[in-house]
Amino acid sequence: MKLKFTLLFAFIFSTALLKAQDSLMLRKIYDEELVNGKCYANLHYLCKNIGPRLSGSPNAQKAIEWGKKLMESYGFDRVFLQPVMVPHWVRGDKENGVIIIGNNHIPVAIAALGMSVATPANGITADVIEVHSLKELDTLGVAAIKGKIVFFNRPFDPRFIETLRAYGTAGDQRFAGPEAAAKYGAIGVIVRSLTESIDNYPHTGATSYDKAGINIPAAAISTIAANQLSELLKQKNTAPVQFYLKMSCKLLPDTLSYNVVGELTGTENPNKFITVGGHLDSWDLAEGAHDDGTGIMQSVEAVRLLKVLGYQPKNSIRAVFFINEENGDKGGEKYAELAAKNKEEHIAAIESDLGGFTPRGFGFSGASPAFVQNINLKWKKLLEPYGADRLTAGGGGSDIEPLKAKAPGVVLIGYLPDSQRYFDVHHSANDVFENVNKRELELGAAAIASLMYLIDQHGLN
Amino acid sequence: MKLKFTLLFAFIFSTALLKAQDSLMLRKIYDEELVNGKCYANLHYLCKNIGPRLSGSPNAQKAIEWGKKLMESYGFDRVFLQPVMVPHWVRGDKENGVIIIGNNHIPVAIAALGMSVATPANGITADVIEVHSLKELDTLGVAAIKGKIVFFNRPFDPRFIETLRAYGTAGDQRFAGPEAAAKYGAIGVIVRSLTESIDNYPHTGATSYDKAGINIPAAAISTIAANQLSELLKQKNTAPVQFYLKMSCKLLPDTLSYNVVGELTGTENPNKFITVGGHLDSWDLAEGAHDDGTGIMQSVEAVRLLKVLGYQPKNSIRAVFFINEENGDKGGEKYAELAAKNKEEHIAAIESDLGGFTPRGFGFSGASPAFVQNINLKWKKLLEPYGADRLTAGGGGSDIEPLKAKAPGVVLIGYLPDSQRYFDVHHSANDVFENVNKRELELGAAAIASLMYLIDQHGLN
Repeated sequence: MKLKFTLLFAFIFSTALLKAQDSLMLRKIYDEELVNGKCYANLHYLCKNIGPRLSGSPNAQKAIEWGKKLMESYGFDRVFLQPVMVPHWVRGDKENGVIIIGNNHIPVAIAALGMSVATPANGITADVIEVHSLKELDTLGVAAIKGKIVFFNRPFDPRFIETLRAYGTAGDQRFAGPEAAAKYGAIGVIVRSLTESIDNYPHTGATSYDKAGINIPAAAISTIAANQLSELLKQKNTAPVQFYLKMSCKLLPDTLSYNVVGELTGTENPNKFITVGGHLDSWDLAEGAHDDGTGIMQSVEAVRLLKVLGYQPKNSIRAVFFINEENGDKGGEKYAELAAKNKEEHIAAIESDLGGFTPRGFGFSGASPAFVQNINLKWKKLLEPYGADRLTAGGGGSDIEPLKAKAPGVVLIGYLPDSQRYFDVHHSANDVFENVNKRELELGAAAIASLMYLIDQHGLN
Repeated sequence: MKLKFTLLFAFIFSTALLKAQDSLMLRKIYDEELVNGKCYANLHYLCKNIGPRLSGSPNAQKAIEWGKKLMESYGFDRVFLQPVMVPHWVRGDKENGVIIIGNNHIPVAIAALGMSVATPANGITADVIEVHSLKELDTLGVAAIKGKIVFFNRPFDPRFIETLRAYGTAGDQRFAGPEAAAKYGAIGVIVRSLTESIDNYPHTGATSYDKAGINIPAAAISTIAANQLSELLKQKNTAPVQFYLKMSCKLLPDTLSYNVVGELTGTENPNKFITVGGHLDSWDLAEGAHDDGTGIMQSVEAVRLLKVLGYQPKNSIRAVFFINEENGDKGGEKYAELAAKNKEEHIAAIESDLGGFTPRGFGFSGASPAFVQNINLKWKKLLEPYGADRLTAGGGGSDIEPLKAKAPGVVLIGYLPDSQRYFDVHHSANDVFENVNKRELELGAAAIASLMYLIDQHGLN
């Protein structure tokens, strides 16, 4: 009885000590970041001195070289590139979109969807048919759609508390809409921008073509213009409502590009990895500040924080700047492929690709209720003072997703900032440095560094 | 035994039913707000059609009249004004602030602190002495300070996770600095703007004079200019670093103004009240969007939501637009005085005066650990899906504070949005409608309506 009691006491005591040690380390991480953080200045450089960096572009290559140098300047143990071939799509001239009703010509804000084909050089003009879902195309059929421009106009459902879910349920219009409309003989597609914001920015993003089918040109239209077009379609007009679409985008041959990887090598398990990453490429309409400049700057910052605090990780800690998340996912696939080839054991992979907004917590992809309960028991209290304590099932991200198949046992984790403002800027000309708050960005970097430290110390089981 | 079991079962069953009913009601509140919310459009009107509304100004009176009509248009059971005399301070001409080193004149961004006296008509010029605390004045003494302009330059401590705490610990410089410096013979004061943001906006705010002492002119200086001035003071200069200050602000006689109150009268306890409020007055430098347009628009919206959903409150539910929070607190004091006079029993008073940012939860002023635990047990799960579930001790607000003495038993509650961006805009020309996010504002209104509903249904014990 006495021994048992003593053991129990020792256990409680050592647990309390560990907790106190963890608590102190998290406080150190946050203090260092909030006082001496570098990620906001780094993001400024990325946005203002490099700028848009679509896969295959000269700017993407500049960002790769700069990112590598940045990691080297922090004295990481290893910094290297992972070569990978990526698609190289270019927008060409600024697009031209005009609503036409008889002699009334109304220019509107549009932007080609990523990977779209061009229109003929003189553009196309056709009657517009508004639909709200892919299913509606089936109901309407060829007779109603053939020769027309299909206008997908289903807005975000505002009732979702997390805007990501609204994006998830509206996103098929952009991703699969053009392909589906082409099957019914549409000659072009315009898609309501995927945002809850009523603004005049077209929000681009990739569309996906059926390789066997006919590829038709597709553009995003601003929500203001979409509302206007929809209103005009409802009115009695003297002439049919038509749309003029002119785009000169094209897909060039694949280009050699790179993931950038920086590592603190583990002192006990150098071949076990805890990674954090975001994507280096961005759409071409703006600076890719929130998507995903903040993600890569937080990733390198999280590793820098652990290094500068003198932390010697048991396992290897990596920051990864993935290339080509926006229109191909080739970087994420390559990283996973090399992890398998090099027999790297991945304990956890964290992705920051939901903007640099105020932290709420982390989502654990495919986590069981028991796993979530356990993680909350272990770490919720530690993260609570920093507001990053929502530890839930779900999460992950498209750059780390391929690891699931290639690195068995890996836990995929999505960093979850507040989601309310993300789609105000997402994929639009509004995604600029000025819309990032320094402290929100820094708190995210510190939250990620904290989670990496906890995983390194205690594992995920 | 059987009876006990049956009773227990009935209790559990009815508790579960209640929870389901509460959960459904909260979902209805959020759906109504996110689909048909009015507070963003109302805030637009307040900011763009009325604008700045310092106590005693014609704009404040416009806002009072408009606010009353707005509440009446929603069909509240009672809408009324509470007359109250308020201070009437005016800024006068745009201030003039210049760093002078010999022939080098550097104009910088300043704004008089609220309630400050003017400089003489031609301004004042004096050597500058930089200090970082009120204590430092005691150390320096009259010999070092007399005849000079004291420059308070202690920045926000970035290590606080909640920016409100940084504001709390830096705020004495603005609030009490001028009074303290005057006692050592200073002839003027400039105070580093109370913000963590490095920008060129002076952030104003009230200062408080010792009525028996000498009142000296005091101005806020932008953080960029404060850093510049501090650098110049550190350099070896050919001439002393002086500051030229010219302000023509003045305090006019007190003016008659009003609180605006709208009420849904309780069906069971008409004389028991659950109130929510913010302040109608704002500083004069901008539109008072976050401070506190969002607070009053959320308050009226919370009551509107309950009404439009057909909810019949047991207790009376009130929205209050308090006047004169910024430079006198006369509205809050009057409301409490009348509550006592009219023998109104206040169950709870909620204040929304920390900006219209994404909701985190509510703070319960002076709450015991047992109270906090109980509230969390009762309601945390219900609020969790909406991210407004941080139910903590602390909170309250200066408009509801006087109720503590005048309405015994009242629970004072502060609505707690995320605090990271508040001081970027607070009391500056940057506090405009464009910096408010529609969904963040709406989610706050729904969170407040939800809490009012829960308190009305279940009380706070």
